[in-house]
Amino acid sequence: MSLTSFVPHIPLEEYSERLKEHFVMRRENGILEVRFHTLGKEALWGFELHRALPQMFQYVGQDPENECMILTGTGDHWIKTGDGASFKAVEDDPETRVNSIYDLWYVDGTRLVENVLWGRNFPIISVINGPGFHTEFGLLCDLTIAADDTLFWERHYCGGMAPGDGQFLVYQQLLGTKRAAHAMYTRYQGIPANEALEWGLINEVHPREKLLPRAWELAHLILQQDRIVRRMTVEIVRRPWKRLMTDDFAMHFAHECFAAAVHKSDHAENYERYKKDWGAGVEKSVDR
Amino acid sequence: MSLTSFVPHIPLEEYSERLKEHFVMRRENGILEVRFHTLGKEALWGFELHRALPQMFQYVGQDPENECMILTGTGDHWIKTGDGASFKAVEDDPETRVNSIYDLWYVDGTRLVENVLWGRNFPIISVINGPGFHTEFGLLCDLTIAADDTLFWERHYCGGMAPGDGQFLVYQQLLGTKRAAHAMYTRYQGIPANEALEWGLINEVHPREKLLPRAWELAHLILQQDRIVRRMTVEIVRRPWKRLMTDDFAMHFAHECFAAAVHKSDHAENYERYKKDWGAGVEKSVDR
Amino acid sequence: MSLTSFVPHIPLEEYSERLKEHFVMRRENGILEVRFHTLGKEALWGFELHRALPQMFQYVGQDPENECMILTGTGDHWIKTGDGASFKAVEDDPETRVNSIYDLWYVDGTRLVENVLWGRNFPIISVINGPGFHTEFGLLCDLTIAADDTLFWERHYCGGMAPGDGQFLVYQQLLGTKRAAHAMYTRYQGIPANEALEWGLINEVHPREKLLPRAWELAHLILQQDRIVRRMTVEIVRRPWKRLMTDDFAMHFAHECFAAAVHKSDHAENYERYKKDWGAGVEKSVDR
Amino acid sequence: MSLTSFVPHIPLEEYSERLKEHFVMRRENGILEVRFHTLGKEALWGFELHRALPQMFQYVGQDPENECMILTGTGDHWIKTGDGASFKAVEDDPETRVNSIYDLWYVDGTRLVENVLWGRNFPIISVINGPGFHTEFGLLCDLTIAADDTLFWERHYCGGMAPGDGQFLVYQQLLGTKRAAHAMYTRYQGIPANEALEWGLINEVHPREKLLPRAWELAHLILQQDRIVRRMTVEIVRRPWKRLMTDDFAMHFAHECFAAAVHKSDHAENYERYKKDWGAGVEKSVDR
Amino acid sequence: MSLTSFVPHIPLEEYSERLKEHFVMRRENGILEVRFHTLGKEALWGFELHRALPQMFQYVGQDPENECMILTGTGDHWIKTGDGASFKAVEDDPETRVNSIYDLWYVDGTRLVENVLWGRNFPIISVINGPGFHTEFGLLCDLTIAADDTLFWERHYCGGMAPGDGQFLVYQQLLGTKRAAHAMYTRYQGIPANEALEWGLINEVHPREKLLPRAWELAHLILQQDRIVRRMTVEIVRRPWKRLMTDDFAMHFAHECFAAAVHKSDHAENYERYKKDWGAGVEKSVDR
Amino acid sequence: MSLTSFVPHIPLEEYSERLKEHFVMRRENGILEVRFHTLGKEALWGFELHRALPQMFQYVGQDPENECMILTGTGDHWIKTGDGASFKAVEDDPETRVNSIYDLWYVDGTRLVENVLWGRNFPIISVINGPGFHTEFGLLCDLTIAADDTLFWERHYCGGMAPGDGQFLVYQQLLGTKRAAHAMYTRYQGIPANEALEWGLINEVHPREKLLPRAWELAHLILQQDRIVRRMTVEIVRRPWKRLMTDDFAMHFAHECFAAAVHKSDHAENYERYKKDWGAGVEKSVDR
Repeated sequence: MSLTSFVPHIPLEEYSERLKEHFVMRRENGILEVRFHTLGKEALWGFELHRALPQMFQYVGQDPENECMILTGTGDHWIKTGDGASFKAVEDDPETRVNSIYDLWYVDGTRLVENVLWGRNFPIISVINGPGFHTEFGLLCDLTIAADDTLFWERHYCGGMAPGDGQFLVYQQLLGTKRAAHAMYTRYQGIPANEALEWGLINEVHPREKLLPRAWELAHLILQQDRIVRRMTVEIVRRPWKRLMTDDFAMHFAHECFAAAVHKSDHAENYERYKKDWGAGVEKSVDR
Repeated sequence: MSLTSFVPHIPLEEYSERLKEHFVMRRENGILEVRFHTLGKEALWGFELHRALPQMFQYVGQDPENECMILTGTGDHWIKTGDGASFKAVEDDPETRVNSIYDLWYVDGTRLVENVLWGRNFPIISVINGPGFHTEFGLLCDLTIAADDTLFWERHYCGGMAPGDGQFLVYQQLLGTKRAAHAMYTRYQGIPANEALEWGLINEVHPREKLLPRAWELAHLILQQDRIVRRMTVEIVRRPWKRLMTDDFAMHFAHECFAAAVHKSDHAENYERYKKDWGAGVEKSVDR
Repeated sequence: MSLTSFVPHIPLEEYSERLKEHFVMRRENGILEVRFHTLGKEALWGFELHRALPQMFQYVGQDPENECMILTGTGDHWIKTGDGASFKAVEDDPETRVNSIYDLWYVDGTRLVENVLWGRNFPIISVINGPGFHTEFGLLCDLTIAADDTLFWERHYCGGMAPGDGQFLVYQQLLGTKRAAHAMYTRYQGIPANEALEWGLINEVHPREKLLPRAWELAHLILQQDRIVRRMTVEIVRRPWKRLMTDDFAMHFAHECFAAAVHKSDHAENYERYKKDWGAGVEKSVDR
Repeated sequence: MSLTSFVPHIPLEEYSERLKEHFVMRRENGILEVRFHTLGKEALWGFELHRALPQMFQYVGQDPENECMILTGTGDHWIKTGDGASFKAVEDDPETRVNSIYDLWYVDGTRLVENVLWGRNFPIISVINGPGFHTEFGLLCDLTIAADDTLFWERHYCGGMAPGDGQFLVYQQLLGTKRAAHAMYTRYQGIPANEALEWGLINEVHPREKLLPRAWELAHLILQQDRIVRRMTVEIVRRPWKRLMTDDFAMHFAHECFAAAVHKSDHAENYERYKKDWGAGVEKSVDR
Repeated sequence: MSLTSFVPHIPLEEYSERLKEHFVMRRENGILEVRFHTLGKEALWGFELHRALPQMFQYVGQDPENECMILTGTGDHWIKTGDGASFKAVEDDPETRVNSIYDLWYVDGTRLVENVLWGRNFPIISVINGPGFHTEFGLLCDLTIAADDTLFWERHYCGGMAPGDGQFLVYQQLLGTKRAAHAMYTRYQGIPANEALEWGLINEVHPREKLLPRAWELAHLILQQDRIVRRMTVEIVRRPWKRLMTDDFAMHFAHECFAAAVHKSDHAENYERYKKDWGAGVEKSVDR
Repeated sequence: MSLTSFVPHIPLEEYSERLKEHFVMRRENGILEVRFHTLGKEALWGFELHRALPQMFQYVGQDPENECMILTGTGDHWIKTGDGASFKAVEDDPETRVNSIYDLWYVDGTRLVENVLWGRNFPIISVINGPGFHTEFGLLCDLTIAADDTLFWERHYCGGMAPGDGQFLVYQQLLGTKRAAHAMYTRYQGIPANEALEWGLINEVHPREKLLPRAWELAHLILQQDRIVRRMTVEIVRRPWKRLMTDDFAMHFAHECFAAAVHKSDHAENYERYKKDWGAGVEKSVDR
């Protein structure tokens, strides 16, 4: 008998409880569906959810009982808008503000991107259930399907930030160097789902109500194959993403953070601006 | 006078004879047309052809009288189906089976990809003459034209193997990271020629009978330019492929081979499954 | 007080005067419009303009008063044709000819590409005002808009040169490895603006008279954001271009130059051939 | 007030308890000392410890109260020898054996290397307290000091395995391509501490009893600097390791695993061989 | 006759005059010796010299009459200490302070490294004439010889900055990943010339008075070869540096700048600390 | 039974006969010793041997009966000097001269380097049996042992060529960027064996008569391990070389060839210069 024992992994019951304020989880036959939300409705971006996401990926990744993951938002938006109070609490105080860029942007933002790609050995299917920003962690998943009214937003620049958190890096990889720059500088209203499909940013477009059934169908299709074949396939599929992130992400993100530290970019002001300046399509998604 | 002499290269007459069971060759004005076949008809995949292909590229590459190459299959399919007996002979015996993954997959598969790209200094035009798998060695050629009924198949995953032999790596390079994953996981019926053209996977689509004349036309066009200009151009064209293969191929292929060794993936079983499960389009190509 | 003083940068008045034979410049609110020309009309390619371009980028880049740049040609062509006498003066003399490949191709060609990308910290919007070759320095800019009758030419190969000066490298990056090879070998008549747009080579297509107003509109849009955010964004946008050029350009260009030295490729002969062989579309642009 | 709250990190008291069978931990002023052991004495390698190590790095990395880490083994050896029963339990059963290469080699071995480098933002000082294998996770730390009687072992090849788990990759990076190959093929007796120091494999050599005090001294020195300066420094220091691992590790390790699956390399047999064949120096470390 | 003329380069007489407050230049047979200084004596680091250096490299690089360059400091130090007033003028005012990190660190620091490597086609021999920091632009030159009492300093970390300006990146390249980290964290007193020689950081060590004669001897040796052979050789020699800088420098430097913006690292305070804390060897170099 | 058969490989008896003017071969237990020579004595460099080497590597690589290779020269020199007549025959005729740079330098030089690294799956031990140039194909082997009087020569630059054929690239990889440049520019007399050992360029130094016995001992040691473990190990060992060559070799070599085409560098003149200018050590090796 071995002299020592294995340290047990943390089971679903435990981590789903720890994470329940931000995620609803259910698992069938190794397929784990994870739905993020804010107070049970559409997710609002805030520092708390920003950190909970990489925590969730880490918990889910260490659990060998997960064989496939479906990741989705709640209701009609991937992220509906921001939780202004989350940002104001930190950014209004000059003392916490300056450090927040490291602790709440750099660390959590880096871990979000890393934990999608490293530390898990099963495929993830993301279901972009409607318009929103921060789709980068959805687009980094192996397969992505989206609702037909989805708009993909890269609003860092128009919001006074350098686009270094991964969303633009994913655009550079999938849209091409040239098209990505144009979308980032000029497409504040977003890239519609059909154009995103044509450009190779996503894989399928469906009416919202058909998204989850399709995701489960895809999960079942993938799970038909042998476990080790599937896991070796995941490694192959994920390799270009890992190389891209290792080569470029830290450069991108440090440029965003440096600019934010000097310019004192903040989020609360941004969300105000969204409401005022950006027309009906955006306003609609901001009112709650 | 030099103290020693040059070791002569192996001439066309000699290598075309050695390779004749798998290839028909003819050369005019430095343009070498190579057509692979099985018993004179559509090629059937087997370990013997798998090895003959890199051998052919090596013989052809060492011959300075070749200035351009046209590579095509026979009849209505690039590869029609497999020669089941070729696989069974090896895979039914547990002793030869385990070693075959190294000798007949890893070595020959690596050399196939390498010998398309290294060791030759002239352009290759591939003519995909119909549906088939293992199009990766066609897609790695400088220019690729295809019959209008071609279907491009990446059936490793659905056949119980990790997609590491180059076909999927070519997809990642030409279709983009995201679209490649979706095609590999879900498009068992293949990518039709027109979609492949639109996605940048191939260069031209023609009715089958016009393919070879068009290939010769392209070869003549390319040969109009000076030899050294042409050969330096080949180096430039081929560079991204060489970098891709050097950076990623060994990683991909070892993952396929490792999964195959553990799961005991084999080909014979696969060809059976093709016949049973995959509908009219595929069945048609399997019956012979 | 500091013990020493800053060495002043060279101001616009000085460098615009030095460069006036090749460029017309005007600056408003930090936006510098640079229009290249030959004798006030459409630019003709010659060794003098080839060198003046990197010189211009260097002067413009060292001036901290430039916050955005608009780069365009004159009249109906990006580059109309060549200034035959410029090439003949050098290439007819065997002595100057052999060295010209280093001094007038390699050095100036390398600096052109490098100086678009390195040494400046502001966005550049290129306005491709009509058909022409040497669009690579336009395509390397952050955003590119083009006249609706533009044709993008990669005519090195058909003109007896290996395509190593950056135009083809930009094609490989933006069109994909496969499509780029086909365009280079076969599309002597050029890629029309609309196809270039669809393939991600450029960002917008407009009637010629609307190009400059649109470019200024884009410049104003970009300048709305904070200076440091804008400059960090430029670094992020430009990174894939810098990596591409550092990894591959010297390899590409040395292959072109080596072939030219052996084959004695020259430009004057080329321009003659353009006139004779390439049909109405090309002839039209050659006569002056 | 924010609409949601942060998910708390797992605190030291909790994870040190979970991991106590393999690690003893103490923390002072943000410096966490982690000592691995087997039953309180020198560590014996087994599948359990192999998995516990990446688990430990993950727990420690998610805890923002850790500002610096000291990692060391117990007693006179980094790893004394193997826990034969741990390997036999798995490898004697043909059923578990074949899958163990994926679950117990590939997954845990990959996570070990990844979790040293990703997911933590503080420096690690490793203290190699004596001879042993699997020093790769020690050498990947930012600073490494070693006992003067340490021997660095890369015994995969002589033990019938391809050297793909990271130890040899670290040698390639630090010893140079050529010297690494020679050490791997021929230096079964190990590289002594002084030679390792001269070759740049480690940073300092001390008598064993002075190692921990020196490690704490180094930790205090590093902690004198501001937290954000320190953490940005860690990112810079770690970058070449992350790039190396992302580019090469999966290729290396899949080759080891594939060979092990075909050859049926196992560990138990190896530990037997160590005892018989490799002379006094090794035997001494094997008897317990 | 060509339709246009070449824009003349800026000649030595002009740029040596513009730069004379920071540099003394003399040229013989194409060998340009450049000596930097402050008020005619040992150079003191300040924002003015920091900017003058890339300006100098740019002027020198555009001049085709330069065939080889010798770069050296003045007197007994490469850089003796800082010109405190230069930093205080900027850093004492919170308004100028925050922007200085971009304009005076990021832009000038990036251009310094870039302009050593890009835009010039001749070899540079650096002569490190004594102890000092900011040796990175000396170490990036093709050949480096140093006075026997030189100490190489990487004092960013101990001075409260992340080491991202190139000095540490050069260490990572030349000393190895592991040794570089140790030198940066712990060797505040510097690496002596002989150790630097043994580690491959520099090429030759001589008594100070023999350095310049030796540099001219090396320059004459290199100039014996044909100009184009020499210039192609320079490209080959410089390639790994260009790749390193393109891949990693922007990541490194943005991390330094971000940390400096948050922590408010400044130089004046640093120079004070040097005087107080770091012992005789350093103090000696600070008093003036 | 399979429908087709394997194309047989070319056996040792056949290729050793074809290559016998340049190589003596013997094989025992899968270990193939290959000794190159000129007329049975020390090898003299010439275009014929330059081409025969990659031919030999190709023949040897395709033969599955080779499990390990020992490569050595004849007598007291790796390459003693050049066969002047070989070069004069080509280089004296302006017509053949200009093309020879492509056919006899570029093609054969590229294949030499490529064929050492690609297309074979067994380890090679090189035995540098004395002073000589073109040691790059020896240094690229997995293990290298050398006679104690060996001098490693990189004499391209002093011979009027840019150092692009691989020797200098190997120096950059093994000696470090800085030391490599110095050795190339200044060490015309060569790097002695002991210094090469200390710098990591080679693995062992022995008196000449002990070299071959030691090589066989190493070969036997390596062959003790299982075939698939050994071959997977070879892939891992060789990976950094393949990446280096794919990334950089074509750039290096095209720069050499371009310079040679413009400057008309030739070999015959070089060998004359060796005799006249370079002192006793070199003269000794030139007289025959």
